[in-house]
Amino acid sequence: MSEWNFLPDGSITSTPGFLAAGVTAGFKRSGAPDFAMIYSEEPANFAGAFTSCTFAAAPVQICRRRVLSSEFIRAAVINSGNANACTGETGLANADATCVLAANKLGLRSDEVVVSSTGRIGVQLPMETIRKGIDLAAAALSRDGGSAAAHAIMTTDTVPKSVALQLELDGKPVTIGAMTKGAGMIDPKMTVPHATMLCYITSDVKADNALLRTLLASCVAESFNRITVDGDMSTNDTTILMANGRSGVELRPGSEATEKFRRALLAVMQKLAREMVMDGEGATKFVTVKVIHAASENDAKLCAEAVANSLLCKTAWYGGDPNWGRVVAALGYSGAEFDPDATDIFYDALPVVRRGGDAGTPEETLVDVVKQREFTILVDLNGGSAEYWVWTSDISYEYVKINADYHT
Amino acid sequence: MSEWNFLPDGSITSTPGFLAAGVTAGFKRSGAPDFAMIYSEEPANFAGAFTSCTFAAAPVQICRRRVLSSEFIRAAVINSGNANACTGETGLANADATCVLAANKLGLRSDEVVVSSTGRIGVQLPMETIRKGIDLAAAALSRDGGSAAAHAIMTTDTVPKSVALQLELDGKPVTIGAMTKGAGMIDPKMTVPHATMLCYITSDVKADNALLRTLLASCVAESFNRITVDGDMSTNDTTILMANGRSGVELRPGSEATEKFRRALLAVMQKLAREMVMDGEGATKFVTVKVIHAASENDAKLCAEAVANSLLCKTAWYGGDPNWGRVVAALGYSGAEFDPDATDIFYDALPVVRRGGDAGTPEETLVDVVKQREFTILVDLNGGSAEYWVWTSDISYEYVKINADYHT
Repeated sequence: MSEWNFLPDGSITSTPGFLAAGVTAGFKRSGAPDFAMIYSEEPANFAGAFTSCTFAAAPVQICRRRVLSSEFIRAAVINSGNANACTGETGLANADATCVLAANKLGLRSDEVVVSSTGRIGVQLPMETIRKGIDLAAAALSRDGGSAAAHAIMTTDTVPKSVALQLELDGKPVTIGAMTKGAGMIDPKMTVPHATMLCYITSDVKADNALLRTLLASCVAESFNRITVDGDMSTNDTTILMANGRSGVELRPGSEATEKFRRALLAVMQKLAREMVMDGEGATKFVTVKVIHAASENDAKLCAEAVANSLLCKTAWYGGDPNWGRVVAALGYSGAEFDPDATDIFYDALPVVRRGGDAGTPEETLVDVVKQREFTILVDLNGGSAEYWVWTSDISYEYVKINADYHT
Repeated sequence: MSEWNFLPDGSITSTPGFLAAGVTAGFKRSGAPDFAMIYSEEPANFAGAFTSCTFAAAPVQICRRRVLSSEFIRAAVINSGNANACTGETGLANADATCVLAANKLGLRSDEVVVSSTGRIGVQLPMETIRKGIDLAAAALSRDGGSAAAHAIMTTDTVPKSVALQLELDGKPVTIGAMTKGAGMIDPKMTVPHATMLCYITSDVKADNALLRTLLASCVAESFNRITVDGDMSTNDTTILMANGRSGVELRPGSEATEKFRRALLAVMQKLAREMVMDGEGATKFVTVKVIHAASENDAKLCAEAVANSLLCKTAWYGGDPNWGRVVAALGYSGAEFDPDATDIFYDALPVVRRGGDAGTPEETLVDVVKQREFTILVDLNGGSAEYWVWTSDISYEYVKINADYHT
């Protein structure tokens, strides 16, 4: 029996005490929903993880301030269609003003509000649209608004991504709800505590900010930092974890309940990470690249990421082509230390490379593996005890189309 | 007036004393030429630069041996359609046997022959086809066979790439001829003395192997190591420079003639490097990414390569989209140290980003730049005196098509 149950139609508002809304403010020409708000009935402890990009967007800079100086937060506002990145002092002032406007509307202090933006880089935020979004969203806040919020943060995503689960801790039910967006500019090079994409997570446990931060960093490292779609990292990547304490369950560092909560949080984040790869721009395949028996975790990581980011591997997967030569070439230029003549490669359970050469499995059989929607490439370096894995997608015509046409 | 003249229809056999041939041996199902031979009438000093891929192909291993232990070489044999990579002991024995067969045919010692292969990885070399290639090519060797040889080493290239120039050194004419192939698996991460792609260069200067090696390494660093098509490095990259001394011009370290020769050699290699990018798989654009005023050359290199390899930048260029946000994002995750708020970006002469934000040039004007077949992205970090540049291409539907379909 699993330690937790995923809830049908689960979302950020599956967690008691959190309201949300998703509305159309007018950032997108299409008229699709583009403004989301999350509201916590109680002050919520929180932690954040952010992009390591040098050009961190204005809203990321605001979030970092909150993490440094706010004990609690009460609300988050998120717009899609405009990233408010590379917008200088005006952009920072606009992100700040967004929090002030939302705080005034909701009867909060502005340091209780966090803000995220996603969309075009280098364009100033239209503040009248922000104002309209805040008015509409505040009026629409509801206990079942999680799904609408997940819709409103989408950009090139084809499906909204929401999830929630329940587990029992200390005999009491605890909920974790989450939503994420992200279909391009996805890459795993971030280092904890830097993270990836827009993701908001709610829970009703009680935990201080330091513990939430530790839990979030640990789970980011094994979820969002393990995925890549195109090897491009965003200026706006943000993950926020909020906990309002309403369940009455208090987490303390090192307790059994905390470890159980961590596993559940990881399950939520891995589920969303998988969904992001599955919904990667133009993606038709979900590929796990796992490297085992490496001399160090870093060698395993270099190998796994080289294969996962290789354009030649990704286009071969798109073509349903087992072409293991491209996997070998990527391992070879990865910079990892290993013995090529000791290397074995498997596609699912089938041996492909044995001691650096063709393992002799008939090509037709290998084609059956890589024609699947989902498969695993296992690289056994036979040289140590370290391992690493990443999740990735193929690169299709559709990827090129989406990204050549995005702007116009 | 230029220091040299490019020769019309120049090739490796424009250099006196070198013969070549290109024939159809049968490696390719298409029946296209797939086997080339170069023959030097005199013993030629030589130098080589090779892939830094851990899985170096068997012919690369043979070439490395020659560089270590042969004083002169007399011939090179090159097949396309089979890479003889990841082929273990059998592959190495086959590469060795190829040299022995060619040496016997040409009346040479096998350590006077180098070998290169390009094509599918992991398939043993069909030795009957090698034998046939050697017989046909030896019979076809001629003083104007350079063009046929350049045809025979093509894989996904759409045009053969040959060049030759003449210059005067010490009052005597000197020739440099060269051919190259390479349209995919092209990436600049190689470090000197590792190099890129198949390239054979002939000259009639006299120089010892140590000097040739220095000259080759210096020119590789500023040509083949500056280009990227898809960020994938090959198992087989090889550049060989042969010099037969027939011009009577002897190069000595540090002499004026040597420096003049180096500039001409660099011109030859840069011309071929440009052609490789122009003929990159599915490429429709040639883009120079130049980073100036960096704190260190490594920072400039990290920035230039991040932009040049960014899938989001490359697909935007394909779409004729000036989207500078993607350039900024790539700079931001490059790992380089710089001040984002001091960064200026220009597309050709037009300011795009000024001090980290929109420079205000109308988008229609920027579109005119990126719609061109060729343009330059200049990044001014305003933080030091180091610089670096790379040449790259866009990524199109055609790239995906070529690489999804290559195998089948």
